[in-house]
Formats: sequence, structure tokens, C-alpha cells
Amino acid sequence: MIVKKVQPRILPGFMELMPADQIEFNRLRDIIRGTFELFGFAPMDTPIIEKSEILLAKAGGETEKQIYRFKKGDNDLALRFDLTVPLARFVAQNYNSLAFPFKRYQIGKVFRGERAQKGRFREFYQCDIDVIGDGELSLLNDAEIPAVIYTVFKNLNLGEFIIKINNRKILNGYFAALGIADKSTDILRILDKFPKINRDTILEELLSFTDNKTAGKILEFIDIKGDNEAMLAILKNLAVNEIFNNGVQELEQVVQNVKKFKVPDENIAIDLTIARGFDYYTGTIYETFLKNYPEIGSICSGGRFDNLAEYYTDKKLPGVGASIGLTRLFYQLKKAGLIKGERKSLSKILIVPLMEDLTVPLQVAAQLRENSIAVEIYFGTDIKLKKKFSYADKMKIPYVAVIGEEEIDKGMITLKEMATGKQELIQIEELANKFK
Amino acid sequence: MIVKKVQPRILPGFMELMPADQIEFNRLRDIIRGTFELFGFAPMDTPIIEKSEILLAKAGGETEKQIYRFKKGDNDLALRFDLTVPLARFVAQNYNSLAFPFKRYQIGKVFRGERAQKGRFREFYQCDIDVIGDGELSLLNDAEIPAVIYTVFKNLNLGEFIIKINNRKILNGYFAALGIADKSTDILRILDKFPKINRDTILEELLSFTDNKTAGKILEFIDIKGDNEAMLAILKNLAVNEIFNNGVQELEQVVQNVKKFKVPDENIAIDLTIARGFDYYTGTIYETFLKNYPEIGSICSGGRFDNLAEYYTDKKLPGVGASIGLTRLFYQLKKAGLIKGERKSLSKILIVPLMEDLTVPLQVAAQLRENSIAVEIYFGTDIKLKKKFSYADKMKIPYVAVIGEEEIDKGMITLKEMATGKQELIQIEELANKFK
Repeated sequence: MIVKKVQPRILPGFMELMPADQIEFNRLRDIIRGTFELFGFAPMDTPIIEKSEILLAKAGGETEKQIYRFKKGDNDLALRFDLTVPLARFVAQNYNSLAFPFKRYQIGKVFRGERAQKGRFREFYQCDIDVIGDGELSLLNDAEIPAVIYTVFKNLNLGEFIIKINNRKILNGYFAALGIADKSTDILRILDKFPKINRDTILEELLSFTDNKTAGKILEFIDIKGDNEAMLAILKNLAVNEIFNNGVQELEQVVQNVKKFKVPDENIAIDLTIARGFDYYTGTIYETFLKNYPEIGSICSGGRFDNLAEYYTDKKLPGVGASIGLTRLFYQLKKAGLIKGERKSLSKILIVPLMEDLTVPLQVAAQLRENSIAVEIYFGTDIKLKKKFSYADKMKIPYVAVIGEEEIDKGMITLKEMATGKQELIQIEELANKFK
Repeated sequence: MIVKKVQPRILPGFMELMPADQIEFNRLRDIIRGTFELFGFAPMDTPIIEKSEILLAKAGGETEKQIYRFKKGDNDLALRFDLTVPLARFVAQNYNSLAFPFKRYQIGKVFRGERAQKGRFREFYQCDIDVIGDGELSLLNDAEIPAVIYTVFKNLNLGEFIIKINNRKILNGYFAALGIADKSTDILRILDKFPKINRDTILEELLSFTDNKTAGKILEFIDIKGDNEAMLAILKNLAVNEIFNNGVQELEQVVQNVKKFKVPDENIAIDLTIARGFDYYTGTIYETFLKNYPEIGSICSGGRFDNLAEYYTDKKLPGVGASIGLTRLFYQLKKAGLIKGERKSLSKILIVPLMEDLTVPLQVAAQLRENSIAVEIYFGTDIKLKKKFSYADKMKIPYVAVIGEEEIDKGMITLKEMATGKQELIQIEELANKFK
């Protein structure tokens, strides 16, 4: 049968990794998941397809342009574009059967039909944690989120990083004092472009909303620098207005508590340029940066919101959370050479039988697997030994166990360490112990 | 701000679990993944959205009706409906950089817009393993797949199960001898309905393709029962024609090797009613059943195919694999009461501080987490102790650690085991050791 061929390829803006990179990707994802679980966050997994009316309850903006929306039968469907909207829907829907504070994590793919460009993806993993309160939520949660972020990035071992923290009330209070409270959202969106966009461009953009003097005041304000204590002292001294002071008080409490969560001082810094683009944040806001790779931009962001699910319920559900865009992060880490992706196999040992009767080799494999050691067998006695070793080499399988008639008679196997080339004869029973 | 509410709900045919069930679901998924990795399968994660021309390269049938297909800009897109077609595309696309035999697993959601009915899902997890050869692939792989399936279901601990095995060549050879080779696919689809559909209905359906005598011969053939040795003896004795004999020979080899893979005899049985609906299978085929829950139907199926990627490449890529439909399986296990889903939290300990200053409680939490013990802290000193215990109870967190001023002075905490109500004073330094 002759079949017409379709050229095998994927769509632009979609990430598909080769096994070696996928192994690394999964390693990072497992560390993130494990850390979330250590902090008592429960897993959640919402559908990828939801009703359009749910996902677009808050209409307008980029979302509507980017969302993948389609009909199937009479249903108006869409693919989730983040994990926050599904969380809001979930909590509203299951309000009566949840225990609050509700702590959940979700790691899953989300979809945005953005303009294709390097390093931007249309399908990407988000790793989210959120704590949702019923009516109210202790500010201690705002301090626990940076503790989780800190532990995640410490465990990921990607080098020095810093969690930058701010509070929306400080910014909003300051803007109110300048008489531009009504332009808050626009100004925040501009500030959010820091540090990707330079000061001059920021100034230019500010001038389309405010006069020269006000823009100057804004830049002067976000230029305030210093360690956390100094920053808090300056902010307290400014005492702009009630909402501002309220924000400063919250920020002080959060920063003090973050310390008690054992986050070292050098990993958390008050930074007034941190604004976050989304308008649902109402208090604490975070961004995280790798110190040696500022060009990567924020690798984990989040904040406090007063009312998670207002489009689905009358209940007031305040929350605080953070999100890691893992696909983009992985892409950037790979580009920066921070991730190599060399192991093409998870196998610790390649078993190479030299005889037809596989009874003993398969017994050895079963025994190793019972001891949680990942093992692969190279089938085919007609294939040259050299080819089998080169397979192990190519796949970066660290050990090859050669099993021949002669060895079996003595209850032994030959174990070769691929990195050193070192060979040893080893008792079959001893093999599992060696790798445990 | 008054916001118009949208009723929070998901679409019919989509599974969304509460945290307690999600914890169980993830536990099963982790066991499956871990077992796949022990056998040397490497992870893969293809995009959920692909070009429609890729997914529909093999056109026709149910697929075209069920697929979620839509346009975004000029792109004709679709959601993957299985993990096999993306694997075929992947191997064809990356042929030059892969080492063969290529062993991969993929666990991910697939989408089929089927008619909604109980226990059928439009979005569901598949857990697939496949081994792909370049030009040829040793029959030993056909024996390794049941070994993986056996280990998965042994580890899942869902009670007794049996892997039923057959070979398409035997069926096709038999049909050819009956002069109905051209109706093979239709007949296989009918037989595939066993054991869900009873004998009379099968006969009736067969009669729309064959005469009474032939239908009788088919039923007589698939009725042959016996242990594996007896079955092989009968089949060898029948010696219908070359393709039949070839199938019997393969089946014998596979069954013998499955034994060497340490799969107990009671877990593998030759069964001539096993047919599989898909026409791409060419040799060995498998289905797996829970012995005490036959009504659940097959929980893991697969088989050998001669040519994986014929729609994308001229290379001949034979393979063998198996797939678990985890969403449906979970639904059925839950319905059968085999899965309870009681733990609403992964936390081992709930820490309850009795004082304002959280320095010590947070230190205790950090210390426990460093020892990989999942811990949650109940914030809020104004909340009654009783409410905190009832939270632990509701969430099924097994231990509560109460930390008060008095205890701290002695470097102690009070640990309560929720199941027994037993309380003990314990040294803070000893706490982590107790749970390691």
C-alpha cells in the first residue's frame, strides 16, 4: 500500500523536547511539585477545555484575542489560558465541600495564541500555588508564599536568585496622593515593564497618562533603593496617606515574617518597581529573578488578591499565590547553558546478554527493578557487542552489565562503568546492593 | 463593583476531582510512571494542539467525527485524540537523532468529543509505552510489554488481574482459511466487543458479514479454551495455513519469554477472543482485566504494529506497546469501591502555634521540610484550638503538633496522633527523626 505522506512537524510556538531534555524538564517539574507538597498544598487538575463563558467571564483585553475558542456541536468551548480562572471557578463551584484556608497547587499546560516570537510559547506549563480564605485570610500566608518560592529555587539549584516584593497599596496610595488614582491600572502596566524596558521609554509611556511633573514624581519614588530595613524606614517616614501607610505596614509584617520562615535576607528585597500587570492584585506582590541572568526576567510572580471568584459567586474569597512559567523558564535556562540535558535514558544499567537463553539476564533485570533500579535490556544476540556499548554511550546509561554463559556458571556478571571504562566481575546477588 | 455572575460548572464528560481523589489519582499515575521508568522507557511530552493534517493523516472513521478541530488565524488545528499518532509523527520527524530501539512513555490528556455517557470521558489521561525499532524489532519486546503491564498492576495493588494475549496472524490466518480475509477488519471489530456483548449478539453481527456456517466456525474457534500449554498444542495441531502457523509460533515464543520475565502463569493467558478494534495491529495483541471486576472491561491494551509512521515517512518503523486509560480506570475503581480517596491533604503534620511570635513554629516547620516531611501550619491565634483540630480531622492530617510558650521553654512540643487521640510531649529535635 502506498500512502501519501504528510510532512511531520509541529506548530510554531509549541515546545516539544527530545528525551534528554524531557528528563531534565521532568526533574525540574518534580522538584517544584515536591516542594509545593512539602508546604501542604494539595494537588488539583482542572479540565483543559472549559465553557467559554467561564473563561471569559471577565471579558476584554488580550485574553479574548489570544484564547483558543471553538464550537463542538452546540457548545462554545475554549482552552484555559491560565490556572487562576479555573481555580476561581472550582472554589466557587465546590465552596460547600472545601475546608478553608484552601491550599492547592496545579501544574499543567495553558494556551495562548500569541504572536509567535522566540521564547514565547502558545502552549506552556504553569506551576501555581494559591491559598484561598473564606471571607478573610491571614497575612502570614503572604509570607509563606515567598518561603515556598525560596525553597523551590534553592532546590532547583539554578544559582543565586532574589524574590522582589512590594505592595499594591503603597503604589496605589502614592498614585492617589498624586491625583492619578484613576490611572492606576495604566501606570502599573507601564511600571511592570521594568526592568525589560529602559527608564526613558518608561518616562515616555508615563507621559501619555500624566504630566511631566507627576511622571517625574513616580520615577523618583520607584527609584528609592536600600536594604529592607532602610526601605521600610523611608516608606514609614513618607507616610503619604492611609492606604499607603496600610501597605507599608503590611509589607513590614510580611518581610519580618518571611525572615522567620528562614528565607535568608539576601533572597528577599523590597523593590518599588515591582508592579505586576494584572489588575486583580490588591496587596503584596512578588517577582523572582536569577541574579546572574537578569535578562531572563521574572521567573516566578504572584501576589495577594482580595476577591478571587467574584465572577462566579457572592462569597468573598481572598487569596495569595504565585506562579512559575516552567516552559519559558526551561527554554531560557537551556539557552543560558544552565541546563544541559545529556542523559537520554533514565536507565542506570544496560543489561547485555551474550546468549540465546535469557532466563538469567531477565532474572537479574527483575531483581534490580524490585530494588527500584531502572534497567534496560539490549535484545538481540546477533548484534555486535561494540554496537551495544555504543548504544549505552549514546544514551548516557552509566553502567553496562554483560552476562555470558561463562559468567553465569560462576554466578557472576561483568559490570562496566562507562565514564571510566573500569570493569569488574561482580556476584549477581551483590549487584542490587551496589546500586541501592 | 457589582459583577454579573456566571454559574460555575464544567462541561459534561470532563473529569475534575476533589483534592482527596486527586491525591489518589496522582498516586496511581506516579506508580505507573515509576514502573515505566524502571523498565528504561524515557519520558516524552508532545503538544496537545497539532496541525489537523498531522492528526488526520489517516482519515476517516470515528476519529474525524470525534476530534476537536478549529481554526486560529490561518491554522487548521486539532487536539490530539491519542498518543500514538503524535508518537508516529515524532519518530518520523526526529528519526535521524533518535537511537533505536526507541523506548518512550507518555502520560497525558487526550480529547475525543464522543457522545456523553456515564464512564466515558471527552478529556482523559492515557499512559502509553511503546518500543519502536528501525526496520525491525525483536519479538522479545512483545514479551517485555506484558512484563511492564504485570509490574504496573502488581504495584497498583488493585487485586488479581490477568493479561490476555493473542496474535492477529492467528485470527487473520483463520479468517483467510474460511475465505473471508477481505472481511477481517469488520470481524475483528465485532470480536473486540467480547466480553461486553454477549454471544448471541456477536453471532447476529457476524451474520451481516458471513454465512451461518462461517459464523459458526468463527465462534467455535474463539471458544477454544485451556491453559497456555494446552492452547498452544491445539493451535499447533490445527496448522491452518502459513500465516496462522507463523502467528502460533510468535505467540509461543512470546508466552515462553513472558515467563522468563517473571510474570506468573496465573497472570497471562492466551485467549482467542482478544481481537482489538484498531486495524494497525499486525501481531501480538493484549488486553488486561481485573479478575474480580470483569464489568470494568479491559484496563490496559496494546499490541504489535508493523509500520508506525507510514503517513509521515518511508522508513519502516515496527513497534509494540500498550496503553492504560487512566481517567476511565480511576472512575471505575472509584465506583467499585477499590479506591477511597480519604486524605484531603498530603501533610503529615499540622503545626498549631499557640502564640503570636511564630519564630519557633516556623523553625520547626522548616526543619521538618528539610527532612522531606510535608507540613502545614494553621495560622491565626484568634481561632479556637478545637477548630484547628477539627480542620486536621477533616483533612485527615495524621498528626497535630501544638506549640505553646510553655512547651517552647522546655524545647518541647505536644504531638497528637489523630487516629488514636494519643498525645505525647516530644523534644523538638526528635520530631523529624520520628517521621523519617
